[in-house]
Amino acid sequence: MSSVEYTVRPVGRVESPLTDPDTAPKQGDEGAPESWLVFVPEVAPALRDLRPGADALVVTWLDRARRDVLTVHPRGDTSRPETGVFSTRSAHRPNPVGLHRVRLLAVDGLRVHVADLEALDGTPVLDVKPVLGGRAER
Amino acid sequence: MSSVEYTVRPVGRVESPLTDPDTAPKQGDEGAPESWLVFVPEVAPALRDLRPGADALVVTWLDRARRDVLTVHPRGDTSRPETGVFSTRSAHRPNPVGLHRVRLLAVDGLRVHVADLEALDGTPVLDVKPVLGGRAER
Repeated sequence: MSSVEYTVRPVGRVESPLTDPDTAPKQGDEGAPESWLVFVPEVAPALRDLRPGADALVVTWLDRARRDVLTVHPRGDTSRPETGVFSTRSAHRPNPVGLHRVRLLAVDGLRVHVADLEALDGTPVLDVKPVLGGRAER
Repeated sequence: MSSVEYTVRPVGRVESPLTDPDTAPKQGDEGAPESWLVFVPEVAPALRDLRPGADALVVTWLDRARRDVLTVHPRGDTSRPETGVFSTRSAHRPNPVGLHRVRLLAVDGLRVHVADLEALDGTPVLDVKPVLGGRAER
């Protein structure tokens, strides 16, 4: 691997009823419960323009993932051929960055109530971004 | 900020004619030139199922971004009000993770030729993912 490294520092955490990786939905539209993003006070200015009703992309650090896995059976289904992780949404990958499209339900100070987030309770949040613009939204 | 930290290790780099942040397009559909993702040999199994013609999401580390910026004028336009970075696509943000939807043009071993990538030459690549599934693709 590259000898250069960079450091990510969580800007918040997920609060969710989901605690078991084996039973949690694999994508947000597969029955994920409502949950909360709870931010650290230092980043309050960064989130001041988040608006209920909008969609957003949440970037997480999948802290329970394995980083030494390069191929997987998609969705853990061993009847499917092993596939390079860059062609799958597996949490297990060299840099386990999670990407989740959520709907913002409410903003209460440092707490943001969201729908459609399949991340486990306690998952570190790295970033929030607008949904992709331009042709990415087609 | 949180006292917990995580380490990201680049799995490759961008090779691009884009070298000047001031003149580079801000989004991939604004005239980004063709460029290459050049991966390190250790992750070869992870990219073996990337197929020309498909779209993919490339996750980068925007190594020339500032991490202490929490609000910006969108697109550097000072006539627009300052906005929390979680509501913008600014490179400047606490964890400068870049997210780019690209089209895969060709795969040649560890080199992947792509269209629509606005990342600067030398930008570290952290991950490649399929485009978001389910309702995220609407």
